Amino acid sequence: MTADFAFSLLARDGAARRGRMATAHGTVETPAFMPVGTAATVKAMRPEEVAATGAEIILANTYHLMLRPGAERIAELGGLHRFMNWPRAILTDSGGFQVMSLAKLREIDESGVTFRSHLDGTRFSLSPERSMEIQHLLGSDIAMAFDECTPYPAEEAAARASMELSMRWAERSRRAFRPRPGHALFGIVQGSIYPELRLRSAATLAETGFDGYAVGGLAVGEGQEQMFAVLDATVPALPADRPRYLMGVGKPADIVGAVRRGIDLFDCVLPTRSGRTAQAFTRGGTVNLRNARHAADPRPLDAECACATCTQYGRAYLHHLVRAEEILAPMLLTAHNLRYYADLMDGLRGAIAGGRLADFAADFAARQEEGDIPPR
Amino acid sequence: MTADFAFSLLARDGAARRGRMATAHGTVETPAFMPVGTAATVKAMRPEEVAATGAEIILANTYHLMLRPGAERIAELGGLHRFMNWPRAILTDSGGFQVMSLAKLREIDESGVTFRSHLDGTRFSLSPERSMEIQHLLGSDIAMAFDECTPYPAEEAAARASMELSMRWAERSRRAFRPRPGHALFGIVQGSIYPELRLRSAATLAETGFDGYAVGGLAVGEGQEQMFAVLDATVPALPADRPRYLMGVGKPADIVGAVRRGIDLFDCVLPTRSGRTAQAFTRGGTVNLRNARHAADPRPLDAECACATCTQYGRAYLHHLVRAEEILAPMLLTAHNLRYYADLMDGLRGAIAGGRLADFAADFAARQEEGDIPPR
Repeated sequence: MTADFAFSLLARDGAARRGRMATAHGTVETPAFMPVGTAATVKAMRPEEVAATGAEIILANTYHLMLRPGAERIAELGGLHRFMNWPRAILTDSGGFQVMSLAKLREIDESGVTFRSHLDGTRFSLSPERSMEIQHLLGSDIAMAFDECTPYPAEEAAARASMELSMRWAERSRRAFRPRPGHALFGIVQGSIYPELRLRSAATLAETGFDGYAVGGLAVGEGQEQMFAVLDATVPALPADRPRYLMGVGKPADIVGAVRRGIDLFDCVLPTRSGRTAQAFTRGGTVNLRNARHAADPRPLDAECACATCTQYGRAYLHHLVRAEEILAPMLLTAHNLRYYADLMDGLRGAIAGGRLADFAADFAARQEEGDIPPR
Repeated sequence: MTADFAFSLLARDGAARRGRMATAHGTVETPAFMPVGTAATVKAMRPEEVAATGAEIILANTYHLMLRPGAERIAELGGLHRFMNWPRAILTDSGGFQVMSLAKLREIDESGVTFRSHLDGTRFSLSPERSMEIQHLLGSDIAMAFDECTPYPAEEAAARASMELSMRWAERSRRAFRPRPGHALFGIVQGSIYPELRLRSAATLAETGFDGYAVGGLAVGEGQEQMFAVLDATVPALPADRPRYLMGVGKPADIVGAVRRGIDLFDCVLPTRSGRTAQAFTRGGTVNLRNARHAADPRPLDAECACATCTQYGRAYLHHLVRAEEILAPMLLTAHNLRYYADLMDGLRGAIAGGRLADFAADFAARQEEGDIPPR
């Protein structure tokens, strides 16, 4: 539990990397997907079930936890790992993104942000220093620098000003971060869709020096093509010996494309949120279990999946649970979706190690046609 | 899987009985509590978690399943055990109770009931013969005779007419029931609060001959004192060598009192429904986890409970999940509540076998004062 935070590269295939991240709460094989545990729970899942899907690290949201139950409360109760009974690694975001998307009456200046809780209107403030303090109180293994997620679309001048503010906040985050063995701080590259801004942001962060580097401000409506273009411009400028994290991404095809461009870490609400709206990811594409075509179908969701849902239940039963609005529906579908994502990452890791990532990606794309929902 | 249905008495303590019921899907130690799995799922629980609480038999509702997904559909998919992945015993009710409480535009006559689904208005009919057919299609281990649950309160004349109709329907149910090895049919005693009617009903059923006998029409608002009075009058008239089932009961104190009066089987939505409304049963009484007094409390819900909830989480975390309306709250609280009920039944079984049921009941009552919610 006191090993240094470390990242080692085990293999490469083109720009893609097969790596291993050592944290205070265990090892994470990369490329890795982090299930989202917003409010100290991966929704509809027991932590042991999350681990059983293959997840080695989850993400928790600073904004939600500072509002309820409060970072000091969690610290009094022994930290986030103990509070939520998750013994593996946790990455916390900085709170910046959710303040911009959820909080009310935001006022932003050089020092930070003041806002009112979307839950009950209580006034809070967040700054690089307070974000670092909260993430320290939570005890997260990987803390994120406090930044402003630049709105999309943004004119270049606005994107530049926002990026430069985030860089000053990153510097303050670095200074305020209190290192503990095995705990890391990642910086976040901003700059919207402008390659020159992205490169300047990456260089600024690299000069300060972080344990890992995230690409932020994507998956905000710009589309996959634009997102990949930003990665093509940005990723080569990130320090090669540190993990790279694409925040808030994404669909399976986004992940495959980003791994091919050198990204090591992902998080997204898609597998968990989809599990609560009857959407399931399968090797043949995305399936909507509310669809009546599943009502009498005894087959598993995904015949190639070894998860507890696919080995124990048929589509007809899952369809019934969805129609009856039973809690077991999100439980079983979330478990399957997280396993699908974990298996996808496992497949990507194996393909990189075996030098066959291009074939893997081609096979993946060719199989996405059987679902109810057209692939992107 | 083809053993005969059997009931053996292992011990007695006063009127209370320690027994064992052999079904086509395993053995049930009695007195036993049956978790309710209305729509082919014990709400918020995986079947393996239900089994882990100690449950050996669950109840499923004919009314809900005939409406959605339909008994013929479940039969096509291999029966209810396979459909919902529950390999242990299942008791199905007859549909009569829910038709009266949930269905619309009911018309009742000697032949049976016609009604419209509360879900979408579709017209259905139910009769002793159709109820037996549906329960056969579902493949339940214990089927219940089709009856009319007499409304409460009822004048004696109305209660008499209702009971006599139920007795004619019980006779038709017995004739329509298709026996299979290990599968049983129980009759249901009616007669409201009138001892004379209850005795006549019990005698009529015993003459026809059933594999077990239920006491119906209770827990409908008459109160514990009245309910116990009906049991005092009725239970001695039930065949001693057959299991006795008190339908829809109840609170822990109701169960303790009914076991002392010779009841062997119980079902109730209370532990599962309470799990979805933040109510938890503990050895010290009933606790409301929404209550702010739990917000900073690191202690387990019930320090004497060995369930996965009590051994892994504190009250503060459960309170947080309830306040955040997280699905994990009903998951963890339902699992605990079912374990509490299973442990209560285990305690009752041990006390009967040891001849110390009176002491057990006195201890039980003395400890019900620490909760948030006053005991009845």
